[in-house]
Amino acid sequence: MPSSGNVYLHDIPLEEAWLRLEQALETHGLAGTLGWEDVELSEQIVGRVTAAPVWALTSSPNYHSAAMDGFALRAAAIHGAMPTSPVSLKVGKEAVYLDTGDPLPEWANVVIPVENVEALDRADEPAEDIRRPWQIRVRAALPPWSHIRPMGEDIVATQLILPTGHTIRPVDLGAIAASGHTSLRVANKPRVAILPTGTELVNIGSQVKRGEIIESNSLVLAGQVIQWGGVPRRFPIIQDDFEVILQQVQAAAEEADLILLNAGSSAGAEDYSARVIESCGQVLVHGIAVRPGHPVIIGLVRRKDGQMIPILGVPGYPVSAAITGEIFVEPLLARWTGRLPSQPVELDAIITRKVTSPAGDDDYLRVVVGKVGDRILAAPLARGAGVITSLVRADGITILPRGTQGVEAGTKVRVRLNRAQIELDRTLFAIGSHDVTLDLLAQHLSIRGRRLVSANVGSLGGLVALRRKEAHLAGCHLLDPSTGTYNLSAIRQYLPDESVRLYGWVGREQGLIVAHGNPKGIKGLSDLTRAGITFVNRQRGAGTRILLDYQFDNLGISAEHVEGYEQEEYTHLAVAAAVASGRADCGLGIPAAAQALGLDFVPLYHEQYDLVFPLEFADTELFAPLFDLMQDADFKREVSALPGYDISRMGNLIIEL
Amino acid sequence: MPSSGNVYLHDIPLEEAWLRLEQALETHGLAGTLGWEDVELSEQIVGRVTAAPVWALTSSPNYHSAAMDGFALRAAAIHGAMPTSPVSLKVGKEAVYLDTGDPLPEWANVVIPVENVEALDRADEPAEDIRRPWQIRVRAALPPWSHIRPMGEDIVATQLILPTGHTIRPVDLGAIAASGHTSLRVANKPRVAILPTGTELVNIGSQVKRGEIIESNSLVLAGQVIQWGGVPRRFPIIQDDFEVILQQVQAAAEEADLILLNAGSSAGAEDYSARVIESCGQVLVHGIAVRPGHPVIIGLVRRKDGQMIPILGVPGYPVSAAITGEIFVEPLLARWTGRLPSQPVELDAIITRKVTSPAGDDDYLRVVVGKVGDRILAAPLARGAGVITSLVRADGITILPRGTQGVEAGTKVRVRLNRAQIELDRTLFAIGSHDVTLDLLAQHLSIRGRRLVSANVGSLGGLVALRRKEAHLAGCHLLDPSTGTYNLSAIRQYLPDESVRLYGWVGREQGLIVAHGNPKGIKGLSDLTRAGITFVNRQRGAGTRILLDYQFDNLGISAEHVEGYEQEEYTHLAVAAAVASGRADCGLGIPAAAQALGLDFVPLYHEQYDLVFPLEFADTELFAPLFDLMQDADFKREVSALPGYDISRMGNLIIEL
Repeated sequence: MPSSGNVYLHDIPLEEAWLRLEQALETHGLAGTLGWEDVELSEQIVGRVTAAPVWALTSSPNYHSAAMDGFALRAAAIHGAMPTSPVSLKVGKEAVYLDTGDPLPEWANVVIPVENVEALDRADEPAEDIRRPWQIRVRAALPPWSHIRPMGEDIVATQLILPTGHTIRPVDLGAIAASGHTSLRVANKPRVAILPTGTELVNIGSQVKRGEIIESNSLVLAGQVIQWGGVPRRFPIIQDDFEVILQQVQAAAEEADLILLNAGSSAGAEDYSARVIESCGQVLVHGIAVRPGHPVIIGLVRRKDGQMIPILGVPGYPVSAAITGEIFVEPLLARWTGRLPSQPVELDAIITRKVTSPAGDDDYLRVVVGKVGDRILAAPLARGAGVITSLVRADGITILPRGTQGVEAGTKVRVRLNRAQIELDRTLFAIGSHDVTLDLLAQHLSIRGRRLVSANVGSLGGLVALRRKEAHLAGCHLLDPSTGTYNLSAIRQYLPDESVRLYGWVGREQGLIVAHGNPKGIKGLSDLTRAGITFVNRQRGAGTRILLDYQFDNLGISAEHVEGYEQEEYTHLAVAAAVASGRADCGLGIPAAAQALGLDFVPLYHEQYDLVFPLEFADTELFAPLFDLMQDADFKREVSALPGYDISRMGNLIIEL
Repeated sequence: MPSSGNVYLHDIPLEEAWLRLEQALETHGLAGTLGWEDVELSEQIVGRVTAAPVWALTSSPNYHSAAMDGFALRAAAIHGAMPTSPVSLKVGKEAVYLDTGDPLPEWANVVIPVENVEALDRADEPAEDIRRPWQIRVRAALPPWSHIRPMGEDIVATQLILPTGHTIRPVDLGAIAASGHTSLRVANKPRVAILPTGTELVNIGSQVKRGEIIESNSLVLAGQVIQWGGVPRRFPIIQDDFEVILQQVQAAAEEADLILLNAGSSAGAEDYSARVIESCGQVLVHGIAVRPGHPVIIGLVRRKDGQMIPILGVPGYPVSAAITGEIFVEPLLARWTGRLPSQPVELDAIITRKVTSPAGDDDYLRVVVGKVGDRILAAPLARGAGVITSLVRADGITILPRGTQGVEAGTKVRVRLNRAQIELDRTLFAIGSHDVTLDLLAQHLSIRGRRLVSANVGSLGGLVALRRKEAHLAGCHLLDPSTGTYNLSAIRQYLPDESVRLYGWVGREQGLIVAHGNPKGIKGLSDLTRAGITFVNRQRGAGTRILLDYQFDNLGISAEHVEGYEQEEYTHLAVAAAVASGRADCGLGIPAAAQALGLDFVPLYHEQYDLVFPLEFADTELFAPLFDLMQDADFKREVSALPGYDISRMGNLIIEL
């Protein structure tokens, strides 16, 4: 095994990495399409890419035909026909009935629609079957070629039907068939081998032990390959063993056009990818200045016959892996099939909060996007490279380029959308406090044709977002200690000039989330100053944090005596997760979050969680399904089945300001 | 067989047709999804639609892990460490090396990155393997939980991963797997039986005889069904025979959720669809006020077990068939799989020419779309329901609603785009004269990442379009009889205030396209006044028409003595097709069109066909590939291989005005 001393991870800009890859592809004859095959014309070829232009072999239609149901005749025969001086023609000799599409007899040059003739029998009586009369009487002339579908109307032989590099759609099939083709020359589908490596990995469906991870990157990468027109082959999980990885890479090289070697691409003790590639080929790039995703390897491996084929060392973090697919695999498959790389729709949006970014890297920030009034807004999602749900939730990507250290809230940024722009019109953009019922709401709104996108910034943050016109609604639970009421004082204070409505949503309990069985016997906030008790807090501006600080004041508890007070999480579930993992002994939150993770709960307070809307949205079509749900018995039943929820005020208009 | 007297075709508005269908679906328990199945998690399920919300079963990661390669330790142990007062820790007891992703020991609460420690051996010398030193020296403190990826960072058990009705993308697979699922509940794929009927139909690959048509609608419909998430089954071609059709419909009903009975939906002599449906079910709608597409039938047929299932009588014209798919099949499959119906991107565009429309119908006008400067333009394509190439070429559909009789040129219309809006940015919008080399140019531009969209309105029409800023370029061959030069006078006359460049494109022959063997011995324009000679003309404003009229003047030929002078076609190929079909004996045109259809050609004139661009586009990135091609030896060789073409002036700047 080569020494690890050869392996350096040195980030280079994405463009330079692509340049090196392109040069290598040129050198090894892999810069163009990977050959073609002739496939039989069938509905299965939708999505394939033409490898040659499709020129019409025949004309279509290849004869003149009736464009309407009617009688074919010579235009000259009815020349001069008028309402007052009709012309009569014998059927069979001078006129022939045709259904739409029937070929025109060679002697005829016009079709007169059946509804414009009098169909008569021998005795001048109306014919029994208007399609088989003895004669017809016509009271208007027609220019030649009227109501005839001429030969070649659709397709004239030799015309271009489809260019090279065209991705086949259903309608194309009709034109290809009609122009005389029975098969189509399409680009070969690139074969992509996906090799998951890592001793910590276990297959989907395994009972996951501590230190193990479900192997799911190969699934994501395989799905991407299919979507982009390749054929994936997922290899079984490979242990972190240099020789075994090498052997599998060499086996894959014989049957693939591209190898994706997942994880082991960094420079840790068990990161064998770069060494494996060096030992059977060549490392071109190790590290790109893109986050998440930087420990990418680009290399070549040699087949037995001497041909080199490209290999990508794909980072192990799921977001990095998926973004590596987008950055490298998609353009590579586009090039190899001869189509244009996909070009995401881009739009300008206003970023809703400040983001810092490493100056040396292109930073791929995942954002949710909503349209509030006329403004398009982008709210940044979790940054971690491990947070695959940030990609699932993302409506788009904002790239903060190298050389910038971040953006301030309110800055205009460019967003690459990964959903149809039209979906923004049915998106409810909620910024504010987090509550478990919002997930349930999202699910029910989804069935009703609305998308609920929520950014969790706490109750105060939500009111600020409404003031800045950056949200459609805000969930809010802000206690006014002087009155004991919720939300009213805060709205008056933070939204003094806005017309808003406050609707009741849920009443809910707040209390301490503690480990199962409450082993440390925590009974209330006073226990937080005890030695050996670690707390996990919510972020500033969260209603729960305000409640905590208020109760600390009441009880005379000083924050500096509470271990963990400075550990901040953004959601109730994140607080519960901190307790479940033993990182903290307790945190203030809601019982649903404790129940979700099998934890115990010490109820302390009852509070009101409400929804605030600007008046301008309250009566819109966009909001209608939300109002329907607030009155929907099934939905209310599901909410009240969650622990600690009271729905008695749901849907009540508390105040309009 | 029931009498045809029962069958009436009576167009009703689309909304009313949908309403009747919806009521029938409700009545027969078919208004919702068609059941679900649990499918194993794999890359093959991309595109399936969730039939239940996906809630997380487990958290991910389910343990704390190192977020970087480094040493796990207690934050308290390095409290106070500074560059000048380092802290040393024994590896094994107080510090443990971890690769990224390794689980954190229970006693540790921080990871210090490997690059931030001094790894030393017993003798205080740098350790041989920095991952296995005897001790480490640390010169900076870290807050607890630094560089740790906490449990539940990505997914907390019970959170909503995906709602019902979500179409699975590759990244979703990762989140579904990571949240503990091994399978997914998805909506059943609706089964759609497609029954092509018609005695005139022949299978793809048949030698097509007069009166026969290649059956290709079933292919288009099957491709649509796949694209929209159903499973198509194409039946063999069925002859126009009531009993046979009935039997096949009944067989299809037993195994399908929807039947598409293609053609026979009108009220002609052999249109059996409505009668077949009546005899084994019920006709709900016969005729919708949509063009093309109006003779649609909506009905129900009864299975042996009594269950009714929907059937659509789909019109036979290919455009009508494809549009019927979009109007009825897509929304129906959306509903049955629980996803939202697809919502095309819409934009406003300016229509480039006047269009008349039947007032009683919603008129689905196919348009090509281009962006010229800041303006988005829509040029209408051929109207015929038989012209499938109009759907292939279409960038979108403009619906001229019932109650309007058309739109004037320059009117703003709403276009439903069927390609990505971003593609408009790489579209060259050519309006003007038609030449066969434009097809070749389109093919070569396509490989170079440009789309050439051309609307054939004749040379004068092209100059008018440039004046109106409705085109990027115009092909032009306008003779100035007084000087014998081409194009210069016309540009000066029609574009007096525009800055344009005129580039040489091709020299080409014009002459008479005649039948193979020239059976009528046509030698020149003087023959056109002979008895028994029928001519086919080009439209007014076409350069070829201007040339003809000019030569008629020279030769003293009066148009009224030319039979067929009033028959106008818009392209050279259409003129050739008219001759090939025997509709005309000759037409003025170019030799390439004659050759395409195996016709003879009588050369008469040599003319210059040039390209005109507004100056503002000439140096843009958009045009660069066009200029490259004008210098490209391979491209020029292909052009000069076409009959009658001279490329000596291609790419020459003739004048800048």
